[in-house]
Amino acid sequence: MKHIYTGKTKDVYELEDGNYLLQFKDDVTGVDGVFDPGANTVGLTIEGAGRSGLKLTKYFFEVLKEKGIPTHYVDADIEKATMTVKPAEVFGRGLEVICRYRAVGSFLRRYGLYAEEGQPLDAFVEVTIKDDDRQDPPISEDALDMLGVLSKDEYKVLKELTQQIGNVVKEELAKKGIELYDIKFEFGRTGEDRQIVLIDEISGGNMRAYKDGKYIEPLELEKLFL
Amino acid sequence: MKHIYTGKTKDVYELEDGNYLLQFKDDVTGVDGVFDPGANTVGLTIEGAGRSGLKLTKYFFEVLKEKGIPTHYVDADIEKATMTVKPAEVFGRGLEVICRYRAVGSFLRRYGLYAEEGQPLDAFVEVTIKDDDRQDPPISEDALDMLGVLSKDEYKVLKELTQQIGNVVKEELAKKGIELYDIKFEFGRTGEDRQIVLIDEISGGNMRAYKDGKYIEPLELEKLFL
Repeated sequence: MKHIYTGKTKDVYELEDGNYLLQFKDDVTGVDGVFDPGANTVGLTIEGAGRSGLKLTKYFFEVLKEKGIPTHYVDADIEKATMTVKPAEVFGRGLEVICRYRAVGSFLRRYGLYAEEGQPLDAFVEVTIKDDDRQDPPISEDALDMLGVLSKDEYKVLKELTQQIGNVVKEELAKKGIELYDIKFEFGRTGEDRQIVLIDEISGGNMRAYKDGKYIEPLELEKLFL
Repeated sequence: MKHIYTGKTKDVYELEDGNYLLQFKDDVTGVDGVFDPGANTVGLTIEGAGRSGLKLTKYFFEVLKEKGIPTHYVDADIEKATMTVKPAEVFGRGLEVICRYRAVGSFLRRYGLYAEEGQPLDAFVEVTIKDDDRQDPPISEDALDMLGVLSKDEYKVLKELTQQIGNVVKEELAKKGIELYDIKFEFGRTGEDRQIVLIDEISGGNMRAYKDGKYIEPLELEKLFL
């Protein structure tokens, strides 16, 4: 097992069969000791955070597998806080794809002239560049194509997958009376045919979820949902 | 003649025949007494600035008319610094549409991870919301549609017109050895069929133009070009 990469919240190893092992860490992103899933820096360590994120991720990736939606997931070991995945290549140096069901956060900060806080949005998709130095700017389909990050055909697939997966998570949460406001995903290309698949994780840190109008903290979501 | 609106650089009057009169002012946008076409505040007054902007605008709008590209232009009186236009309704509370031929300015600030300064761009189009409070954020085709500002069909027309007009200005400038880096336009709907047409102005303040690698100030452009 070869160590490949040290991420903010995960370490990555290459396995002998060519798959990769993601080691979920208890480090979470945040600022000044406060957990903030949107932050770009590791803010603190919370005992059990890695395992908690993995439990939700395993749950959702297995639901997606049943529905035939492509992901990089192979299997997970909750005890060891590890997930085995197929190797995937990210787009450019990494993109985040957001699916929005209510106008909050950066959407509202940008488009507040035309949107009211909490206004329903119909699975609105937007892409941002992973670029800490430039505060993860949003980027359009045309710009992704022109800069050689993602072709127009790939954008179409990416958008459809994002809405499909967002809707699956939304419906799953709704079964427990939880409402999904927005969620962010990462995608990559895998295999010889460079199929676009969901990668990384689906956990409390990737989404804004509410119950009875109250925001649910990422770690609380796992307890409430599973 | 009825006064309708006082803008930063123009006053607007309604004429008896239903057309509008734009009075170009010598006020220019800027910060701390320095002319900056991208600024949202009136920074200073420059004798002759209104007439200078109108001269270029008249020139370009008449070229567009010859080419059958729709604008709100009727005629202009350089002496009085006025332009007569057809009434038009803006999209939402106003959009700016940018056409880029080289990666500079806000494009580079956002996408510097994938673009080099001055890199050629193939008439890249982006739309920003006119919203001083939110620093004129960029907005995607999907968001414009979802927020009811611009339909998908209208976006298609808007993008095509933007590239057409951008290319006309680029070619005109090239005849004098001037290179267009980027240009911003405003559009509106006019007439009973709500045709999308170019509105406002085309002058030095709307574009970045270079000669022999050197940026040309807005007022200098008129002298150099006409």
